[in-house]
Amino acid sequence: MGNADYVNSSAGVEYGHRVELPPPQPFIKSLKYSLKETFFPDDPLKQFKNQPLSRKIVLGLQYFLPILEWAPRYTFQLLKADLIAGITIASLAIPQGISYAKLANLPPILGLYSSFVPPLVYAMMGSSRDLAVGTVAVASLLIGSMLGNEVKASENPKLYLHLAFTATFFAGIFQAALGFLRLGFIVDFLSHATIVGFMAGAATVVCLQQLKGILGLDHFTHATDLVSVMRSVFSQTHQWRWESVVLGICFLFFLLLTRYFSKRRPKFFWISALAPLTSVILGSLLVYLTHAEKHGVQVIGHLKKGINPPSFADLVFVSPYLTTAIKTGIITGVIALAEGIAVGRSFAMFKSYHIDGNKEMIAIGTMNIVGSCTSCYLTTGPFSRSAVNFNAGCKTAVSNIVMALAVMVTLLFLTPLFHYTPLVVLSSIIISAMLGLIDYEAAIHLWNVDKFDFLVCIGAYVGVVFGSVEIGLVIAVAISLLRVLLFVARPRTFVLGNLPNSMIYRNVEQYPNARNVAGILVLEIDAPIYFANSNYLRERISRWIDEEEDRLKSSGESSLQYVILDMGAVGNIDTSGISMLEEVKKFIDRRGLKLVLANPGAEVMKKLNKSKYIEKIGQEWIFLTVGEAVGACNFTLHTYKPNSSKDEQPDEYNQV
Amino acid sequence: MGNADYVNSSAGVEYGHRVELPPPQPFIKSLKYSLKETFFPDDPLKQFKNQPLSRKIVLGLQYFLPILEWAPRYTFQLLKADLIAGITIASLAIPQGISYAKLANLPPILGLYSSFVPPLVYAMMGSSRDLAVGTVAVASLLIGSMLGNEVKASENPKLYLHLAFTATFFAGIFQAALGFLRLGFIVDFLSHATIVGFMAGAATVVCLQQLKGILGLDHFTHATDLVSVMRSVFSQTHQWRWESVVLGICFLFFLLLTRYFSKRRPKFFWISALAPLTSVILGSLLVYLTHAEKHGVQVIGHLKKGINPPSFADLVFVSPYLTTAIKTGIITGVIALAEGIAVGRSFAMFKSYHIDGNKEMIAIGTMNIVGSCTSCYLTTGPFSRSAVNFNAGCKTAVSNIVMALAVMVTLLFLTPLFHYTPLVVLSSIIISAMLGLIDYEAAIHLWNVDKFDFLVCIGAYVGVVFGSVEIGLVIAVAISLLRVLLFVARPRTFVLGNLPNSMIYRNVEQYPNARNVAGILVLEIDAPIYFANSNYLRERISRWIDEEEDRLKSSGESSLQYVILDMGAVGNIDTSGISMLEEVKKFIDRRGLKLVLANPGAEVMKKLNKSKYIEKIGQEWIFLTVGEAVGACNFTLHTYKPNSSKDEQPDEYNQV
Repeated sequence: MGNADYVNSSAGVEYGHRVELPPPQPFIKSLKYSLKETFFPDDPLKQFKNQPLSRKIVLGLQYFLPILEWAPRYTFQLLKADLIAGITIASLAIPQGISYAKLANLPPILGLYSSFVPPLVYAMMGSSRDLAVGTVAVASLLIGSMLGNEVKASENPKLYLHLAFTATFFAGIFQAALGFLRLGFIVDFLSHATIVGFMAGAATVVCLQQLKGILGLDHFTHATDLVSVMRSVFSQTHQWRWESVVLGICFLFFLLLTRYFSKRRPKFFWISALAPLTSVILGSLLVYLTHAEKHGVQVIGHLKKGINPPSFADLVFVSPYLTTAIKTGIITGVIALAEGIAVGRSFAMFKSYHIDGNKEMIAIGTMNIVGSCTSCYLTTGPFSRSAVNFNAGCKTAVSNIVMALAVMVTLLFLTPLFHYTPLVVLSSIIISAMLGLIDYEAAIHLWNVDKFDFLVCIGAYVGVVFGSVEIGLVIAVAISLLRVLLFVARPRTFVLGNLPNSMIYRNVEQYPNARNVAGILVLEIDAPIYFANSNYLRERISRWIDEEEDRLKSSGESSLQYVILDMGAVGNIDTSGISMLEEVKKFIDRRGLKLVLANPGAEVMKKLNKSKYIEKIGQEWIFLTVGEAVGACNFTLHTYKPNSSKDEQPDEYNQV
Repeated sequence: MGNADYVNSSAGVEYGHRVELPPPQPFIKSLKYSLKETFFPDDPLKQFKNQPLSRKIVLGLQYFLPILEWAPRYTFQLLKADLIAGITIASLAIPQGISYAKLANLPPILGLYSSFVPPLVYAMMGSSRDLAVGTVAVASLLIGSMLGNEVKASENPKLYLHLAFTATFFAGIFQAALGFLRLGFIVDFLSHATIVGFMAGAATVVCLQQLKGILGLDHFTHATDLVSVMRSVFSQTHQWRWESVVLGICFLFFLLLTRYFSKRRPKFFWISALAPLTSVILGSLLVYLTHAEKHGVQVIGHLKKGINPPSFADLVFVSPYLTTAIKTGIITGVIALAEGIAVGRSFAMFKSYHIDGNKEMIAIGTMNIVGSCTSCYLTTGPFSRSAVNFNAGCKTAVSNIVMALAVMVTLLFLTPLFHYTPLVVLSSIIISAMLGLIDYEAAIHLWNVDKFDFLVCIGAYVGVVFGSVEIGLVIAVAISLLRVLLFVARPRTFVLGNLPNSMIYRNVEQYPNARNVAGILVLEIDAPIYFANSNYLRERISRWIDEEEDRLKSSGESSLQYVILDMGAVGNIDTSGISMLEEVKKFIDRRGLKLVLANPGAEVMKKLNKSKYIEKIGQEWIFLTVGEAVGACNFTLHTYKPNSSKDEQPDEYNQV
């Protein structure tokens, strides 16, 4: 009794195709293929193939310094566009840089330094045409809170500053290493949902921190969680300064208004782009004229003139600070990287050019390594600044060079102008930028489309707001990974039914008109069969069979004879999975039923063959499609079973 | 231009089936279903359905105390079989118990205590008929090394003993909690490959530890890794006792010989089962007669008479010991559980009765909780003892009761007989038991079938032998999880081709005779589309298209028009995945191609619908099978494109 008769007979549809074993491959070759797919999915060496050595060297240089590739083609037309974009982002970069440096408890001048050297490095090495380099709020806050646990900026500002350089250095090393080692996919583990929740949480936390500046408080908690901040704010209500509050609210209103306007009319993007600088100028003038600094409005104060001093000698490589610096560097590095890569990718997608994630990592890493040696702290490609750059019509990375030059001019000549800039204006600038990061619409979308992603998002948000930035991140990544593991640990199994007038078998839940075939239970397994799910699948398959037999018994239909497993969606199987299949075969045999496999893929066939499972089940009981398997089972049922009646025969034989 | 024309025309095969959205389900209902599948895959409450309350109470009691279910049906015939099996395992339990207690640096008498109370508890609560309860070597060693890090058994034996009870208590709590919370699947994450490698590593380490007894050394390292043990052994060569070595080798030879014999002739299983007790008796007699204890052969010495004293008051709940006890309890608890469950399952499978994993956990957990209060340390169902039980023809858990009674008699009357038992005999017993755990054939099988599983196995082995038991475990679990994550992060994508004379499309690597269809690229994705792989898939799909266009260009064939994604094996998709599909659609559109989906499953359709992707791509471009999709594409290609020729048309239309 086998389906050999069936195939040779003229009873059914004959394809004559067997499920094939893939051609055997030497272990080394398949290992090489797997490694290539894992680390070089984008095939970066493709362009080097079949090229003379000199060309290879040129291509290699162009690979690491894309400027060599596009600079020769640079035109005056492009320069004009980049000039406008560069100046626009510089006007945003200066106040934002100062604000974010304050957020990291670093001297404000560092914000300017960080908008000078890193953009120049990125312009050489980066492959994005739209990314505008600069510091970001979230990473700044993280540096502040993580380093603050080790050294208080107020107590030992010099050591704190040096630790910030060191952390930046390690962030750069880590980022570049990820790129060199082709491990860029680690960033992918920060899912879209994680980033939405995390960014919103970080923005909330950053806004809360700004209460210090808005309320004009001198003392403030170092913790970032909601509870600590609220306690800190409401325990010193008598210290609140109304002058500061009024000024803050006015500027915030102004900034939000311009943002709203520019959002409604994208052509006037420059209004919101220039608003921060306008606020700074207006605020400084106001303070200068009214001497408000003597009435409780805190100002930036003296800013040193001159460009970045070298800081290589300041890097701290001694314990106990080294571990803190490395830890801070790695965490802030990954987060900054995720933002930079995501921003670069989005705009590249929009303008339809290609960005190489690993190359970008090397560029961002290098710019931070160089930055850490020239008094800069962690930079990346912030979304807000890049969006302005894009809207201002930038064409190439030259806009970064223009911005750097503008910042240089500021550093050399204009720093005294910021003496009277009130801190409350900086707080307003930060808040208005942060509110844009709270993307509640995205969260609603997540809820509508995918509840699990929503859970990840909320996990990240709650973790950041009530715990800390790191806790939020860990929660979100843990839930995301749990989801992947759950997918594998608890795969879906479906009963398949026959679609009327076809040989197609589909999930009866999705296709309510699919009909069961008498005496045959068709199951589909929807995930690889791995150790994590083999016990579950064994129990689940046995339960499906129990339920089907109960159903048949209660409805008085003919009893079950065959169990067909559709393996089409089983991508891989491991040895635990094969043991499970062996056990399933045993207990199906013991119940007097027959196990039949349909459509096992290449990888599964290879493993089943090596473990001799094919011999055990019989090659003739493995079919190319569920339709053929059912056909063969029916043929045997009706030919060999005396109790079968012609009427029961499903009509798929005559159809199709 | 859509396929509506195609379906209405008479050009192709008409199924007329649309890809359907599954019927909408309220969120709560689908959540309930998922939770049920995750935590109650075996549907344990099924038997309670539609029963009167009194019956429910009886069933509930029987659920937790299976003895209530089978005891009324117990017969004298069964008792006879259980009696023989019980006495046989008792003869093994006594010397093994003493040996393993020494391994854990605990007083030897604890080994006997642990074979008295826990088997009684298990007999009431356990659902396995073949499991023989007792201590195990690996868990004993782990307790020795983990507690030894906190308190040295030689320096503070009392505290050490109390810590062992406490660790057992927490192990029991943890095991029972896993069962109650239906988290039994955590044990599944110890894959078969992990257990093979881990067991072999632990057996190696345990054998190495026996060098102390065999060589008759007084001082020995507390570390368990190969390097430390070898250094310890060879740094004191002058301390080696030849009397001990000779005795050890003789007994080991005897034990291995009986084991070999019994393995060849399974009927004489009792020879190897009785060999340890015989060795103990012979060894003790020899020492007693020759006074070898005065010539460097160490003996057990005095053993207290009497059954288990209570030890509830000895549990230590104060820091700093509490954390060590909890950690040790959880790790040893999981490992013991994994062995017990695996053993129970194997024999149940063999005799074809059903075992409920979660119920077993509650039974094993309770027996350890009770054990920790009655001077027992960690017990489970060891493989060796259960195999002997099975071979001796046990029928029910009564064999455990018989063993417990035999051990009780020993405790009450026979302990003085063990005074002269030489430690070297115990070492031989352990080594001979451990050698059976090194399953090199299983490792070779892993290498042949699945290289990744082999890597997991070797990782566990090397980790245990060169690091520690915990390190080995962590390495193995980490590699196993990495594999699952890699499967999702780097899913396989295949080009599908048409099998001649059919409408079936399969992977061209597996089916070399599958042919490409002119102008159409068919890709299959073999994993759920999640955040972890969405970037990879985007790059990979774009590379497939590039490669296909290059191939077509170089071979001068007609250019690419359609890209069909076969989603049949995509079990699920998250919001990152949907964004990826949107981007893929954009860049495929930009290249002037058309994206077509084939066979999306229920979950995927639901998400695509909610995110409005179906509207974007057009319902008419989603097909039930790849065959239909190709048919529709071809129809449009040949009907609307003036440059198409009749010859190019594949012949699947006329076939089938």
